[in-house]
Amino acid sequence: MGLPPETRAEFTLIEWIARQTEARPEVLLGIGDDASILSAPGQDWVVTTDVLTEGVHFAPGTDPALIGRKAMGVNLSDLAAMGAEPCAAFIGIVLPESFDRSRAERLYDGLFQLAREFNVVIAGGDTNSWAGPLVISVTLHGLMAPGTAIRRDGAQPGDWIFVTGALGGSLQSQRHLTFSPRVNESRALCRSVGIHAMLDLSDGLGSDLFHLLSRSGVGAILEGEAIPIHSDVPGTLSPGERLQRALSDGEDFELLFCVTPEDGACLLEMPPVSVPLTRIGEVTAERSASLRWNGSLTPLLRSGWSHRFGS
Amino acid sequence: MGLPPETRAEFTLIEWIARQTEARPEVLLGIGDDASILSAPGQDWVVTTDVLTEGVHFAPGTDPALIGRKAMGVNLSDLAAMGAEPCAAFIGIVLPESFDRSRAERLYDGLFQLAREFNVVIAGGDTNSWAGPLVISVTLHGLMAPGTAIRRDGAQPGDWIFVTGALGGSLQSQRHLTFSPRVNESRALCRSVGIHAMLDLSDGLGSDLFHLLSRSGVGAILEGEAIPIHSDVPGTLSPGERLQRALSDGEDFELLFCVTPEDGACLLEMPPVSVPLTRIGEVTAERSASLRWNGSLTPLLRSGWSHRFGS
Repeated sequence: MGLPPETRAEFTLIEWIARQTEARPEVLLGIGDDASILSAPGQDWVVTTDVLTEGVHFAPGTDPALIGRKAMGVNLSDLAAMGAEPCAAFIGIVLPESFDRSRAERLYDGLFQLAREFNVVIAGGDTNSWAGPLVISVTLHGLMAPGTAIRRDGAQPGDWIFVTGALGGSLQSQRHLTFSPRVNESRALCRSVGIHAMLDLSDGLGSDLFHLLSRSGVGAILEGEAIPIHSDVPGTLSPGERLQRALSDGEDFELLFCVTPEDGACLLEMPPVSVPLTRIGEVTAERSASLRWNGSLTPLLRSGWSHRFGS
Repeated sequence: MGLPPETRAEFTLIEWIARQTEARPEVLLGIGDDASILSAPGQDWVVTTDVLTEGVHFAPGTDPALIGRKAMGVNLSDLAAMGAEPCAAFIGIVLPESFDRSRAERLYDGLFQLAREFNVVIAGGDTNSWAGPLVISVTLHGLMAPGTAIRRDGAQPGDWIFVTGALGGSLQSQRHLTFSPRVNESRALCRSVGIHAMLDLSDGLGSDLFHLLSRSGVGAILEGEAIPIHSDVPGTLSPGERLQRALSDGEDFELLFCVTPEDGACLLEMPPVSVPLTRIGEVTAERSASLRWNGSLTPLLRSGWSHRFGS
């Protein structure tokens, strides 16, 4: 209908995006109208949003496919922390004017690849460009049976504290761009035991733990020697330095969760997931956090950094 | 629990945000966990997302309250275009490092004020800062009885084409920062007539009309003399120049919709809303768009600009 060339070019990108997206019955209306329509009778929607910015969450010059992958991955990790089944994503992107079509497609390819792996449909979005650096915002919708979402506020004194995988060194090794969100692990854990409280480690164990304790109104003792340290943390560091890295590096995107000692023993005996599960401490009634290290108990200081709300 | 000062400052902003948000029964879990939980049995969710960037959607130096207001307003306008009832918003913000606490609060105040006016709860979000300019992404969730959303694809040959309000001059007059999203008007219209197709005018009538025609597989004849031109368009321009401004300026955030001639006559006789409703043309079976102007029919060229998908 007589589009001038510049709008035709943008439309081709949008049409290309629309062609990449698969169908899911919960998405009654997807890309192409003023809004999209989601419907999942009998289920709750679990919704999270994360914004990634150049120079903060990824370095300038990073492969656009890895940036897209991370933007989807951090949101999938949030849904994993609730025990939800990922379903539909809305993508807001601000492209630098220097981004040509092939770099834009590479960015979306990274998003789509992880979306497909977890059966996520791209249900809508907004694509802009400007003179500034790259920004990606993803709002991800997951599904849950009513009342079954795992929140941060259910930890009980006496609970054992677990983490999946190993911690530290993620930013230096670039693992923060390639990590596997623990969506399937979370759902397997939820099926096999009663998880009292869970979150995903984005700012670092030494910071995120306090969110869970504060919301649950409890404290904790962490066993420093038990905390699994990732091989990405240099082995040349001292044990204390390596522990500090595991506590404060952040961007691990592993799960931190609390279960009864009985459930914890079951998990250690017959783990329902292939990723390592490690008991790293215990929840206490006293509302303070301590670290046992070298045989003595010291107050755990909040480390890492935090800038998020609601996700 | 021993927060260092910098994280305490960020937490205070987040706590302040959480305190501003009201409750709605559909938001089972809001700000403060890994994700939020939405539940509205028996209803569909209508979801839209828009990203606003400094220098593109608002000028540097714009009052932060007006920026926040616009970020909420453009999404409310998208829900109005579907006939949905606004409910819950997720806010992704990237603040420039130069933004102090009071400017950040002013930005959120603008968001909250319009949110409250339309009974929208802030259900979650992500607040970041960086060395770049301001970016705001809003993902807004509305509610509808299943199957009642007004899409773009239902226009029928013979339908009358209407707009609310008047068009043109929005950017120059700064109306794009202060407009009232037509949420209540949309719902009043939906209650009184059967709307076949509707969208909100963001890129300009001369551009957005084509989305509706293309999705519906129809054409249109617009009556140039009938198109309501906003008083923000300078009266010193020629009639043709004024018409061009109404067609292509964009950022009107008025509703464009199609109804049967019978329903159209009812709307003209007994308008269910106080904002002016104007019949500006007719839908045709022939898939082309024409403009009647000065007694002759000329092809309508797509004007304005477009960069959106799904919203």
